[in-house]
Amino acid sequence: MYDVNPVLDFHHPHQLKEGLEGFSLDLPDQPETLEQLLVDCRDTLKYGVSTGHPRFFNQLSSGLDVIGVAGEWLTSTANTNMFTYEVSPVFLLIEEVLLKKMRSIVGWADDEGDGLFCPGGTISNLYSILLARYHFYPEVKTRGMGALPRLAMFTSEHSHYSVKKSAAVLGIGTENVVVVKCDERGKIIPAALETSIATAKEKGLVPFYVNATAGTTVYGAFDPLNAIADICHSHTLWMHVDAAWGGGLLMSDRHRMKLQGIERACSVTWNPHKMMGVPLQCSAILVKKRGLLQECNKLGAQYLFQMDKPYDVSYDTGDKSIQCGRHVDVFKLWLMWKAKGSDGFGSQVNKCLENAEYLYDQLQKRTEFELVFKNKPEHSNVCFWYIPPSLRSLPPGSDRDRRLHQVAPRIKGRMMEKGSVLIGYQPLGTKVNFFRCVFSNPATQQEDIDFLLDEICKLGADL
Amino acid sequence: MYDVNPVLDFHHPHQLKEGLEGFSLDLPDQPETLEQLLVDCRDTLKYGVSTGHPRFFNQLSSGLDVIGVAGEWLTSTANTNMFTYEVSPVFLLIEEVLLKKMRSIVGWADDEGDGLFCPGGTISNLYSILLARYHFYPEVKTRGMGALPRLAMFTSEHSHYSVKKSAAVLGIGTENVVVVKCDERGKIIPAALETSIATAKEKGLVPFYVNATAGTTVYGAFDPLNAIADICHSHTLWMHVDAAWGGGLLMSDRHRMKLQGIERACSVTWNPHKMMGVPLQCSAILVKKRGLLQECNKLGAQYLFQMDKPYDVSYDTGDKSIQCGRHVDVFKLWLMWKAKGSDGFGSQVNKCLENAEYLYDQLQKRTEFELVFKNKPEHSNVCFWYIPPSLRSLPPGSDRDRRLHQVAPRIKGRMMEKGSVLIGYQPLGTKVNFFRCVFSNPATQQEDIDFLLDEICKLGADL
Repeated sequence: MYDVNPVLDFHHPHQLKEGLEGFSLDLPDQPETLEQLLVDCRDTLKYGVSTGHPRFFNQLSSGLDVIGVAGEWLTSTANTNMFTYEVSPVFLLIEEVLLKKMRSIVGWADDEGDGLFCPGGTISNLYSILLARYHFYPEVKTRGMGALPRLAMFTSEHSHYSVKKSAAVLGIGTENVVVVKCDERGKIIPAALETSIATAKEKGLVPFYVNATAGTTVYGAFDPLNAIADICHSHTLWMHVDAAWGGGLLMSDRHRMKLQGIERACSVTWNPHKMMGVPLQCSAILVKKRGLLQECNKLGAQYLFQMDKPYDVSYDTGDKSIQCGRHVDVFKLWLMWKAKGSDGFGSQVNKCLENAEYLYDQLQKRTEFELVFKNKPEHSNVCFWYIPPSLRSLPPGSDRDRRLHQVAPRIKGRMMEKGSVLIGYQPLGTKVNFFRCVFSNPATQQEDIDFLLDEICKLGADL
Repeated sequence: MYDVNPVLDFHHPHQLKEGLEGFSLDLPDQPETLEQLLVDCRDTLKYGVSTGHPRFFNQLSSGLDVIGVAGEWLTSTANTNMFTYEVSPVFLLIEEVLLKKMRSIVGWADDEGDGLFCPGGTISNLYSILLARYHFYPEVKTRGMGALPRLAMFTSEHSHYSVKKSAAVLGIGTENVVVVKCDERGKIIPAALETSIATAKEKGLVPFYVNATAGTTVYGAFDPLNAIADICHSHTLWMHVDAAWGGGLLMSDRHRMKLQGIERACSVTWNPHKMMGVPLQCSAILVKKRGLLQECNKLGAQYLFQMDKPYDVSYDTGDKSIQCGRHVDVFKLWLMWKAKGSDGFGSQVNKCLENAEYLYDQLQKRTEFELVFKNKPEHSNVCFWYIPPSLRSLPPGSDRDRRLHQVAPRIKGRMMEKGSVLIGYQPLGTKVNFFRCVFSNPATQQEDIDFLLDEICKLGADL
């Protein structure tokens, strides 16, 4: 069945640029015919990648939820912006309902909190730092970083690069982001965080922000949130939880305890476009302190936010955001929630984590593979090496490592040429290139997982 | 015909929140039926606003291009991210082709320049400041603003608020944004810019960035780009042109001379989702200096940007952007370009500006209206007051102003209740509330403009 439906039909950039069978990327002066447009559409899909394919394991976002796509189609037909109630009455109320629900799932009180849907988790994380800085130093908005002491932020070595990137953008500087050591499973070591904070203070820096990760990108690790919350409390630091990837587990009664302590955070990033399978993009920043988003970001542009409008202008939420025009990312999530219910999302998450456990079990049984760490996965990430026959008898050491490092890229290259399956790899710390499999598509079945392992063995047998 | 198709079916927030005829915003635990989902979809559209209606004059983005919507539908079906070639081969090449074409239309040499599509014009403008800062002070990325002198930026009093907002976000501070005086048409006064730069230097600030606007939000004014470029050149300042709204005019042989000098800019914001009618969102930041985006923003995350991939990794452009995952905003524009050709976009722009001239002519003829300024519009913005019968004999002065200030909001309120047409208003400087009509929907006909004026007269006759 899948043989006729590949995950991708790979071509190199120069091949696509030179044009393939009447598929040209060039922009004409005169209109093309409707027939040609249909060919262009067909070819765009043909030479693209089927991220909804049950054998696409390459990214945290995957799958293709039919209701979600229908929601996005309606959204693009409505073609409006999220800045004012007068042009987005329903969508703004839907955003309010969703954010309130998500905050209550995080565990905040009904009268607490605020939030926004943002163009991706990096921007959501950027908001958290922006808000933390404004919370402690509101003068930064008018006077800039020059008026502030030298700030320090803390995040784990396994956390997402968006924390550092945001520090660069916000004018804090990447060298003021202190990278805290993790244990072998990728979880922040609370004692190391304490030490890092003390060291920064000794150097004259002023700590203000800690990012904890619920579901790291590669290992799927959950930082110990309660221990981090204790430290943040004792030092009066802003605690952010980047649950972009792990937030979906809050929907599952079976798995939500992995995020215990998240209710103590000052802000949370949660991307329904990852574990909950919502079409791209759909990412929320949740903020515990009500009013802060508005105070931090408002400029009160009179052409957009007139106070003499004939309705309750507190629904004109556009001044809370960095963006002016903001895409409607809420309707697809809302419609999926109506279609599945909270319980349906829970089952979907459970299914993805069962797939991860199945893969983990298979990897333990099969001698061609080696797990990156022995523990059962907490999230749906499973990390492993394929050991080709030629390496199986080699002793551990730098020679084996050097050769093993080349295995995953070479298998990935062959995989792409063949188009049968797609999975990511990377090195991490002292560990040479290994595969990272992630499950967020509930359409994936155990037979797809068996196929993945068999295919890796087939493609790597001669390496 | 339009009587049965209103622009909107207005309800107050509390009415929609309380639920209307079985339309509930609540999120259930259990799935709803497919029938109920269809009702939810129908009601979302019913209580929304038809931004594609030929009588929607409320925002710079309007219209509903069928090919553009089809492009967006395909995009959401493909459901992928712009970060790497391996998951977005076609879309990344399409982005490259579009950016190259747009740069050549701006007037840059073939081997110059770079760019990105961003989630809206504010983010595009934010990039321009981020890049300018990095260009002059690359150490800011690691060391933060604390290592820099106190910077100063310059923008006109009529420019978009995103310049100030970005200064707040980037840690520069809004008080270091110097607001430069404009002439009565809303164009920056070059001598005032010179004076502002000198004053800032005297105060010990270090000027580094000037934003010029090509098409201001309210008046549609074009700053004198060549004069500004001369000043930037003599002081070695980064010149950005915010052509979010005016960029579309570059597509028209008749109107592109209004942006003369744009080719001298270091960076340009251009939003095809405004004047070119592309569905939301579609905004580009174009940068003259190649390599700067990558240097400024790269962090080289190994889980995403492996250098040992089997293809030319220079197409993995995700490290150029602040965002990690980035929505595919290019396909709809590309498909529309194929469908219309460059010439088709030109005709569409011409049509919108002809509509503006027609409105201007009508306003001159009709005694119930007063133009905010006498000159023929340069862009498709037309600003005017409606003078109700009770005010027509009043002498100019504060009493008349006070009463006139209330006219536009009250007419707008009635307009929304009735749903027949939608237009924006605002005060500006010493000018009391006036209507701003903008044309970006090529479906608007002269009869729609006649209808707008007649409707304002009808709704305001008793004020």
